[in-house]
Amino acid sequence: MLIQLINPNTSATMTDAMATSAHQAALPTTQILASTPLHGPQSIECALDEAIASAALLDLIQAGKEQGVDAHIIACFGDPALEAARELADAPVIGIAEAAFQLASIVAFKFGVVTTLSRTLPASEHLLYKYGYERHCSGVRATDIPVLALEHLEPQAYALLKRECEQAMTEDGAEAIVLGCAGMSSLVARLQSELPVPIIDGVSAAVKWAEAIHQLGIKTSKVGHFGAPVQKSYVGRYEHWTR
Amino acid sequence: MLIQLINPNTSATMTDAMATSAHQAALPTTQILASTPLHGPQSIECALDEAIASAALLDLIQAGKEQGVDAHIIACFGDPALEAARELADAPVIGIAEAAFQLASIVAFKFGVVTTLSRTLPASEHLLYKYGYERHCSGVRATDIPVLALEHLEPQAYALLKRECEQAMTEDGAEAIVLGCAGMSSLVARLQSELPVPIIDGVSAAVKWAEAIHQLGIKTSKVGHFGAPVQKSYVGRYEHWTR
Amino acid sequence: MLIQLINPNTSATMTDAMATSAHQAALPTTQILASTPLHGPQSIECALDEAIASAALLDLIQAGKEQGVDAHIIACFGDPALEAARELADAPVIGIAEAAFQLASIVAFKFGVVTTLSRTLPASEHLLYKYGYERHCSGVRATDIPVLALEHLEPQAYALLKRECEQAMTEDGAEAIVLGCAGMSSLVARLQSELPVPIIDGVSAAVKWAEAIHQLGIKTSKVGHFGAPVQKSYVGRYEHWTR
Amino acid sequence: MLIQLINPNTSATMTDAMATSAHQAALPTTQILASTPLHGPQSIECALDEAIASAALLDLIQAGKEQGVDAHIIACFGDPALEAARELADAPVIGIAEAAFQLASIVAFKFGVVTTLSRTLPASEHLLYKYGYERHCSGVRATDIPVLALEHLEPQAYALLKRECEQAMTEDGAEAIVLGCAGMSSLVARLQSELPVPIIDGVSAAVKWAEAIHQLGIKTSKVGHFGAPVQKSYVGRYEHWTR
Amino acid sequence: MLIQLINPNTSATMTDAMATSAHQAALPTTQILASTPLHGPQSIECALDEAIASAALLDLIQAGKEQGVDAHIIACFGDPALEAARELADAPVIGIAEAAFQLASIVAFKFGVVTTLSRTLPASEHLLYKYGYERHCSGVRATDIPVLALEHLEPQAYALLKRECEQAMTEDGAEAIVLGCAGMSSLVARLQSELPVPIIDGVSAAVKWAEAIHQLGIKTSKVGHFGAPVQKSYVGRYEHWTR
Amino acid sequence: MLIQLINPNTSATMTDAMATSAHQAALPTTQILASTPLHGPQSIECALDEAIASAALLDLIQAGKEQGVDAHIIACFGDPALEAARELADAPVIGIAEAAFQLASIVAFKFGVVTTLSRTLPASEHLLYKYGYERHCSGVRATDIPVLALEHLEPQAYALLKRECEQAMTEDGAEAIVLGCAGMSSLVARLQSELPVPIIDGVSAAVKWAEAIHQLGIKTSKVGHFGAPVQKSYVGRYEHWTR
Repeated sequence: MLIQLINPNTSATMTDAMATSAHQAALPTTQILASTPLHGPQSIECALDEAIASAALLDLIQAGKEQGVDAHIIACFGDPALEAARELADAPVIGIAEAAFQLASIVAFKFGVVTTLSRTLPASEHLLYKYGYERHCSGVRATDIPVLALEHLEPQAYALLKRECEQAMTEDGAEAIVLGCAGMSSLVARLQSELPVPIIDGVSAAVKWAEAIHQLGIKTSKVGHFGAPVQKSYVGRYEHWTR
Repeated sequence: MLIQLINPNTSATMTDAMATSAHQAALPTTQILASTPLHGPQSIECALDEAIASAALLDLIQAGKEQGVDAHIIACFGDPALEAARELADAPVIGIAEAAFQLASIVAFKFGVVTTLSRTLPASEHLLYKYGYERHCSGVRATDIPVLALEHLEPQAYALLKRECEQAMTEDGAEAIVLGCAGMSSLVARLQSELPVPIIDGVSAAVKWAEAIHQLGIKTSKVGHFGAPVQKSYVGRYEHWTR
Repeated sequence: MLIQLINPNTSATMTDAMATSAHQAALPTTQILASTPLHGPQSIECALDEAIASAALLDLIQAGKEQGVDAHIIACFGDPALEAARELADAPVIGIAEAAFQLASIVAFKFGVVTTLSRTLPASEHLLYKYGYERHCSGVRATDIPVLALEHLEPQAYALLKRECEQAMTEDGAEAIVLGCAGMSSLVARLQSELPVPIIDGVSAAVKWAEAIHQLGIKTSKVGHFGAPVQKSYVGRYEHWTR
Repeated sequence: MLIQLINPNTSATMTDAMATSAHQAALPTTQILASTPLHGPQSIECALDEAIASAALLDLIQAGKEQGVDAHIIACFGDPALEAARELADAPVIGIAEAAFQLASIVAFKFGVVTTLSRTLPASEHLLYKYGYERHCSGVRATDIPVLALEHLEPQAYALLKRECEQAMTEDGAEAIVLGCAGMSSLVARLQSELPVPIIDGVSAAVKWAEAIHQLGIKTSKVGHFGAPVQKSYVGRYEHWTR
Repeated sequence: MLIQLINPNTSATMTDAMATSAHQAALPTTQILASTPLHGPQSIECALDEAIASAALLDLIQAGKEQGVDAHIIACFGDPALEAARELADAPVIGIAEAAFQLASIVAFKFGVVTTLSRTLPASEHLLYKYGYERHCSGVRATDIPVLALEHLEPQAYALLKRECEQAMTEDGAEAIVLGCAGMSSLVARLQSELPVPIIDGVSAAVKWAEAIHQLGIKTSKVGHFGAPVQKSYVGRYEHWTR
Repeated sequence: MLIQLINPNTSATMTDAMATSAHQAALPTTQILASTPLHGPQSIECALDEAIASAALLDLIQAGKEQGVDAHIIACFGDPALEAARELADAPVIGIAEAAFQLASIVAFKFGVVTTLSRTLPASEHLLYKYGYERHCSGVRATDIPVLALEHLEPQAYALLKRECEQAMTEDGAEAIVLGCAGMSSLVARLQSELPVPIIDGVSAAVKWAEAIHQLGIKTSKVGHFGAPVQKSYVGRYEHWTR
């Protein structure tokens, strides 16, 4: 199958890093089409970034749709534009937070989330409620490591990340850790080797979930709220959305 | 004071209509700066429309900020980009759904929402939960009247809207009606004269709320999650967001 | 307009203090009719106080109704007798806690409540759930300063109050502070000058909310649960409630 | 033991009727002290009635306390003044709604409530949430039979009550019926003989719960929020509450 | 009446201990039939133990049913097999956790639970949500004292238990303590004499609740989900369940 | 990989049917070890059945563990004994309801559940709350088709099942259907060909989820509540559980 892995931020190196994780997770028969938007923020660390990135990533969804991809993954822990993408796409759209929460709750009684800036805590909290996982999460911890610093993580920053994972376990009762940023996916193996609980990365979880759904021949329900977007005229820089 | 009234869709006639409602509600000392985006959907009737419109309206927030407005109102019942706008703006930002729900719950035990397309029901449901009003709402009813048809409402469509309001009262127990679209604001007086319960329009509610908050000298809290957006590089069509 | 500001406790000096705050907040065209009950507790610090005060304040609501006031404000943070008052009155009735929560959630991601006796924590908790704000509140802190001590606040008590506000910010993540007692309204300006987050006083919030609703020509819905009280005979000291 | 059975309304015939039910339920060693207030509404059918009755019944709690009763029962389905009564009393205070919900959930998967005026639905809804029984209740149905009409129930009114019970079963899935008014307690036997599900009356449930708690030697916790009311001056008709 | 008190674990000495507590609580006219299963775990300290014990205790329910008991009590704080037992039995079935939570919330604003192994925290959490008491519980604390160590409690272990109760009060705001294991029932008197809040033991609460319900002549509703188990063939060691 | 597919009921023909579905869903490299218990009910249609079957299936989990399976699937829509199985097993354990809910919410805004006997509605309701999917489910409908009748479904029964799916769509707003019984898995293809929304079968969803988790090298977290069962003596027919 062909999976479109969308990095909603414009950092190509981050796209590469998450694509590497995706490839490692994927079956040999799965191709990963890693997409970086041409427009938008370099990283997503607050609501403004997310709002802008949401609009931009939808162009990538459209491109992937035209390419006939079998699934789209939105690889940002805020799962931005998820509903809009599901309206637009024919193939299923999976958010990495949603996939991570689901997987984590199969293997642990409670999971903790360890993420980047504390500015993103509302986004995580919002998703936990939206997906129904608020009772399954032992807590969300922020490391205040900037998203772009994850690519070449300083030893002290890594140590901080690891320490937050440990405190999530000892203080919050986390029995698995969900890494709260697509940019952390390259750290899974190392953290897993140093910590006694499952470390869940949304990028790889989403890849596997996409393969699973595709193998079942299931697609997004197009009757109702994820149906094709309503016919509409668009103007200005979004004129191309007219349908 | 100067209130920026943002119509997130590109229909200038709709901006005029909501501006009229806003002027009628406003104090004589309040100026309304009605803004229509240059980019985006003609109306917002699904998640895709809302995602695109969200990005576009933030340019208007920025423009209003530079003009030194005293408040911004996002006049779309989905309250799109509310958090991002609160990060960006200095002045308070008010969503018309939030204001309408708040006002309605002061004057009624339960309120019903009557809105446009059933495609927007998830948006309403989401906001009720987000703002904590799910127990105060007797139900959300869709008329399936397109947003742009509200401007020159056909008699049959008006009759349908009125009937949904009545059924909200008799079948759901609504004791006030919240009109679920900024485009319905011009219908308030007529509906109010024909129905025995308060008819709440978010545009006028938001105007009064904005005046109230301004008179108290209160502004958005800038420590924390509504603080200035994180420093970031943006590229492409959003390059102007670099800060 | 004419707003009846009801102090549910019998402390006339407290009525004066909240009336001063109300006047400061009100438009020049708004008259404040500050009412002190003839019967009841000197201050409201536990459930018994609130139950007795509730009955007494309804006489004031009736008096205000006969005077044709345009709004009633119940200026006690427990919003006592709110539903009964809404049944009885023609004009809207606003509780200061409800108004404060609403305003705070427009300007902050989460607000903390700082109040008087820890004995009142159940009342605050109850209102947060009743109004749907439990997810918006970072926590309720009690200073254990008696209500009547607020009028001439000792420096140490003020310092304690300020410290609780600061801890609400640093420990709980409050991004605005809601003052949990009408008697604290005279402290807003000083606290606001010393703290970096919005300090919300329910008395002034309720005054502005009352003006806003009045300007919109909206009144309490009288169909349903806030309709006129059911016809009833009353005996004894409450005989005057017979209708 | 000596149980004070408080009828919060001033209808002495209703007090007699509920006292009869209480006696039938009580152990031979239990005395029922049935109390009717000297002040207040003849029946409680809206929020105003309840607010006034709440203040009045606290005098009865005080009287019972001075008599050294072993328990107090508040026999009105709104469980009015429950927290205030628990502060005031030494002995446990039981509300008939609370006892009925508890008992019903032991014997049925879901219970339905059938009550008097639809004006009281908010009171029932409020209690279900307050006590945590909202998921256990299949629905609250109003018969719109006035409380005082229950004493000598017209055949048609009885038929209506019975029909609502039946519809609660067939339409809502109720597997037990909680009678939503102390005045219905005399109807239990007849309804029970004609309906196939447990019919729960809060008066008798509360009597048994009171006996149970008394036999265990357990009393209200006086550390914390049900502790003795805070020392306070009262004036006017409530001067006697000064402590 | 005849109450069957089921110890779901196979420790006969623990059955004796809880039977002693039950007898102390019961009326003179109540006989306690204490039952120990022939099959299953010696104590219940994790989900596996509970699943196995659940199946075994149903044989005891059946035996009690054949003996015509008037009530069954499941004396394990996880209330195992409660729904199955209610289907099977004619007489009411009461879980000790359910009874304890109910009683505690009548006498305290919030109750804390103090239990045995932290491995059982999910079970307690689950029951709090199932019964609707999550907002009434100030917290669940584990002492990590093995269930079987309760029978002859070492002084240090008792001191630990008492300390957790105290911390529940001082740190969590518990105003009553619910003992989270049937095996703690013999400690009630001692703890009660040393602590200032009600100490609630589910075994005695359930005995009193059983007597109360029996005296009212109320039984489990057999229409619906607690009706007789569906006709079914069983094979192997469970063949005897065929009906 | 080797997946143990556990049929908790003793109907071997039903095991065959679900094994067929599992094989159809599985990758060529996945072996399905379909297990039927030697003890227990022929089908699971009420709480008693589920309690007994829970104990029995744990023997199968143990057997699968000794065989070194890579995952266990509990193929009964009540997900019985899920926590106990997770304690016992080394490999992940997946319940078919949990997997189905997760998958359905990726492809639809709301899903409806259509199941067998209305007696099982509490089980479905319980799981929706336990997993956090109560807001994602448009409703649970029962066909009252006995589980064992699914194997050779009468045309009328099929028509009834199909009609409930349709009504779930038209009346409840379901945008996907989750089949509420493992025994329905053989009907997926037919229903899918006749209905316009995704039909989700928990057996195949669980198979794919198991493969996904296995490919990621993730296993159940053994620190905490899914850790190895506590050391315990067992007696009688369960003696073999002693560890």
